[in-house]
Amino acid sequence: MPNSINRQILLASRPQGDPGPDNFKLVEAPIPVAGPGEMLLKTQWLSLDPYMRGRMSDAKSYAKFVEIGDPMVGATVSKVVASNIARFRAGDIVLAYSGWQDYAISNGEGVVVLDPSKAPVQTALGVLGMPGMTAYVGLRNIGLPKPGETLVVAAATGPVGSMVGQIGKIKGCRVVGIAGGPDKVKHLTEELGFDIGLDHRSPDFAAELKAACPKGIDVYFENVAGKVWDAVLPLLNDFARVPVCGLIANYSLTGLPEGPDRSPMLMRNILTKRLRLQGYIVWDFKEQTSDFLKEAGGWLKEGKIKYREDVVEGLENAPEAFMGMLKGKNFGKLLVKVE
Amino acid sequence: MPNSINRQILLASRPQGDPGPDNFKLVEAPIPVAGPGEMLLKTQWLSLDPYMRGRMSDAKSYAKFVEIGDPMVGATVSKVVASNIARFRAGDIVLAYSGWQDYAISNGEGVVVLDPSKAPVQTALGVLGMPGMTAYVGLRNIGLPKPGETLVVAAATGPVGSMVGQIGKIKGCRVVGIAGGPDKVKHLTEELGFDIGLDHRSPDFAAELKAACPKGIDVYFENVAGKVWDAVLPLLNDFARVPVCGLIANYSLTGLPEGPDRSPMLMRNILTKRLRLQGYIVWDFKEQTSDFLKEAGGWLKEGKIKYREDVVEGLENAPEAFMGMLKGKNFGKLLVKVE
Repeated sequence: MPNSINRQILLASRPQGDPGPDNFKLVEAPIPVAGPGEMLLKTQWLSLDPYMRGRMSDAKSYAKFVEIGDPMVGATVSKVVASNIARFRAGDIVLAYSGWQDYAISNGEGVVVLDPSKAPVQTALGVLGMPGMTAYVGLRNIGLPKPGETLVVAAATGPVGSMVGQIGKIKGCRVVGIAGGPDKVKHLTEELGFDIGLDHRSPDFAAELKAACPKGIDVYFENVAGKVWDAVLPLLNDFARVPVCGLIANYSLTGLPEGPDRSPMLMRNILTKRLRLQGYIVWDFKEQTSDFLKEAGGWLKEGKIKYREDVVEGLENAPEAFMGMLKGKNFGKLLVKVE
Repeated sequence: MPNSINRQILLASRPQGDPGPDNFKLVEAPIPVAGPGEMLLKTQWLSLDPYMRGRMSDAKSYAKFVEIGDPMVGATVSKVVASNIARFRAGDIVLAYSGWQDYAISNGEGVVVLDPSKAPVQTALGVLGMPGMTAYVGLRNIGLPKPGETLVVAAATGPVGSMVGQIGKIKGCRVVGIAGGPDKVKHLTEELGFDIGLDHRSPDFAAELKAACPKGIDVYFENVAGKVWDAVLPLLNDFARVPVCGLIANYSLTGLPEGPDRSPMLMRNILTKRLRLQGYIVWDFKEQTSDFLKEAGGWLKEGKIKYREDVVEGLENAPEAFMGMLKGKNFGKLLVKVE
């Protein structure tokens, strides 16, 4: 990579349905210069996460969407190249939000210096970062798993799902994980310690889920929607909790009715089973960050939590990797090694 | 009413859609005799409540349905005629669950002696009973109204809705009530102290609700479903809470799909607005009964809570009154004066 240019991946157009290569555009720009109160960051690792699909659309959501022609947003692990901010020094490795580009200017807001001696720096994008904390706060505040209960999670080899299931085991639950393909399913029980792994691609998936949950489901961590949700809902026990953290199967749905749907069967289930469905995003619980880092850091050190990374080399490969992730092609936390 | 017979209203058949007169059957039976450890109760007041529609169907729910040929279930205020239970004496007025009949045998389980000097005894079926407590626990545990927030409730002149709105006012909320017809709407603001009353029959209802909630909706107490829910969902604010206590407009829906519905738009709203939807029934919080009686009793004494009764004379008129209630024909807590 030449040192005088800043490669950026821009949002070229808004996807209708599944994103395609035409929705992204790689451009080269001059490396920006840090002004007073700013610093220049060079991206080392770029995190790719499902929420980015939402930012490509201009529908109202919890965060501002990306404007067409702007770089795609995203968390990064970056190195400070030059700093005019007292608390950051050249050479520091930081957790930042540079987006899909080689370089970015930051005013330091929300940027955290990482200690490479504690854990590999890129874990700040995965098991010790937003995905891990998403699992942690969703269970702590909404899922409320209790010993002996059955917890079900899909996308279970991903960075959120794998943490959900492993925390479920720490809390004494029977944990059923759902993933796509035999390698991932094997990983759930053999590496992550789940009780059962299921393949959502199986033609008998709904029946297999039922057999795997003879006492019903007490906690369903919703991060995929679609046919998994169809299979889960009839199995939910009275007083089951459903933290709604993602709906990846729905993100690219088109042709939905404009208004709300009345959802009579879902509402009837909510009433008669006294379900709790609650949406959240990780930053709703940002005051729990230090609790999370302390607790999850401890579990990691004690070997109670394992994590897996899926590393793609080169910023130019980010769009393809991202599109693959929305189809479940990644196996573990998807990271782009930029430098 | 002759004294030697026990009139009973039985479930004659299960309704398809709206219940009709053929679903009920009035029969005459001998007055039963209390055995050891039992007492004979004579019904004074029968409570009619929307949940009874659910008991007429054999769909799985939180409570056992009524068998065909059995008396319809229901809470009553009854007089003890004869008692073989030490803690009940002939002449006591009690809250019981005798169902739709003149007389019933009870083993005393769940029966509570009422003190007629404290409040009219039939309030144990309304403002100081199950409906009032339904409002209280739904707000206390799920709705969590805060000062300055906007609370919306439908069926707002009914015994649950009127209590919800009045508690909302006590908690400092802006309260918007929805009812059917000009008399009820007027009652909301002029008698109950709501900020705004709206008529769901208005052709511009959705627009009127939007205008009535310029800051959106923070708490929606769901007891009706249908088009009110359609109008509410787009107005819900981030972090809004929706206690789901009833779905009266859906109770007689037919032709619903067998399985769960995937509800993509509702789920997207739950996620992006971080909504909390939670179903409950009053007895899920039965340990809060004494808190409720103390607090609501105090409000009633201080004049902070008003209530309205809609009294129908004669057990034989219960089916028609019940069918009318499901269409919103009652105005206040619907009671049958049996004796």
